[in-house]
Amino acid sequence: MSSPHLRSYEDRAQKHNNPAARALLYLMAKKKTNLSVSVDVTRKKDFLAIIDAVGPYVCLIKTHIDILEDYDPSIIEDLQALSNEHEFLIFEDRKFADIGNTVALQYSSGVYKIASWAHITNAHAVPGPSIIAGLASVGLPLERGLILLAEMSSKGALATGAYTEDAVRMARARRDFVVGFIAQHRMETIGARDTDSVGDEDFLILSPGVGLDAKGDAMGQQYRTPAEVVTDCGCDVIIVGRGIIGTGRDIDVGEVQRQAQRYQVAGWEAYERRLSR
Amino acid sequence: MSSPHLRSYEDRAQKHNNPAARALLYLMAKKKTNLSVSVDVTRKKDFLAIIDAVGPYVCLIKTHIDILEDYDPSIIEDLQALSNEHEFLIFEDRKFADIGNTVALQYSSGVYKIASWAHITNAHAVPGPSIIAGLASVGLPLERGLILLAEMSSKGALATGAYTEDAVRMARARRDFVVGFIAQHRMETIGARDTDSVGDEDFLILSPGVGLDAKGDAMGQQYRTPAEVVTDCGCDVIIVGRGIIGTGRDIDVGEVQRQAQRYQVAGWEAYERRLSR
Repeated sequence: MSSPHLRSYEDRAQKHNNPAARALLYLMAKKKTNLSVSVDVTRKKDFLAIIDAVGPYVCLIKTHIDILEDYDPSIIEDLQALSNEHEFLIFEDRKFADIGNTVALQYSSGVYKIASWAHITNAHAVPGPSIIAGLASVGLPLERGLILLAEMSSKGALATGAYTEDAVRMARARRDFVVGFIAQHRMETIGARDTDSVGDEDFLILSPGVGLDAKGDAMGQQYRTPAEVVTDCGCDVIIVGRGIIGTGRDIDVGEVQRQAQRYQVAGWEAYERRLSR
Repeated sequence: MSSPHLRSYEDRAQKHNNPAARALLYLMAKKKTNLSVSVDVTRKKDFLAIIDAVGPYVCLIKTHIDILEDYDPSIIEDLQALSNEHEFLIFEDRKFADIGNTVALQYSSGVYKIASWAHITNAHAVPGPSIIAGLASVGLPLERGLILLAEMSSKGALATGAYTEDAVRMARARRDFVVGFIAQHRMETIGARDTDSVGDEDFLILSPGVGLDAKGDAMGQQYRTPAEVVTDCGCDVIIVGRGIIGTGRDIDVGEVQRQAQRYQVAGWEAYERRLSR
């Protein structure tokens, strides 16, 4: 089978074995969007207003539920209602990074009960395979999917070289639950041994650090354009934060929608250009 | 100056430049304990009962605040009252693992406001130096300290070799805020270049995976004894979980206290043996 990024999202949706990945690919094809908006705000009012505004343009809403200062369980109900209304999935960017026993509790329990509402969450590979086992013990029965961090786009990140290769190997061993990577390019050839059958694997590549205007910030974040990320590097989902939501306070709904639409179009054109090559 | 682990905790307390590290070393000498208890339970009742029981025997209580199912802000007040009564510091084992801008919000804001009550927290080095900058922007004004994860004790962990060296170099560049490592041995010689002046550095080494009885669990955790950790490997604080708190449900206070005292004695004897060598 040809590399996943040379096939349509629709075709990939039909063949994927994980329910969360299948639902995401199906939505992407239906809504013609590979845009995920990162809603990094601290107030419930802004959080819900932004998600309602960008909902029609995105396949995935990326949350940091633990930065909301006025969190209460009703936020989850509102978020789920918006997810149903606008048809997007929810990705809690928790970056789990502990041993299996601990992450299983962090994922299922506590105030947030992330597994009960986030279709997709993510984890670092640094603790070794136990982190995937722990999260899968909670997430698989709920038909969830896991994204592994194989690289990071911040300056001086240590997820490079052998680390990235080991992360991909860990994912390859648990393809029932690990549906993709936070990364800057395709991962099919990374860390593959001669004995691995990688021909039918289909990892989604979600790329953060995407911007049409800005080039970086003071705390080490770096940006690339949708064309670079999707057409040139073969990534599947572009994650956009400040380029769409601005400061995230006292938002101008019209402007947020214009930016979301702009990124949706740029991301989709980059995808169509990739398929037509 | 000789390697930190060959000096007394009291001597190190007098010379340390970080307020949280200074307070911890002072407490260790005063209470004759290098024991930290990991309170990984999901119910407030058990959480506070365990901390009250082990308080007299520990220098540091390690929390996972985000696994408490019935969390409310009064838990923090109760925790702080116990911290004052029994004289221990609080270490929230959050394992921050995101870019600077995000971790600054996760540390200061949200439901938990970790920076407002945890004297010490920890972070992975994988995002690069921005994670330390982001956390320091919040924690330094509050006189907090940061522990960096340079290694992990779980099977197949990727924090090894060049990763560990880079993590130590990141810490060395921010000795005002990074007070030590989660690790299995001393770090003074790791990643040091000829041009680095490491003679006066004093990183605390906190070692998890310590047990007097068990050898491992099904999710990849591995155990070592206090003698191995403190005497042989020169670590400063032993972190003990299930060996003291058992399952953490319906706890037997007397038994938990007996175990805490047993580990306190074992850890302290291992430290005295180290100094007398």
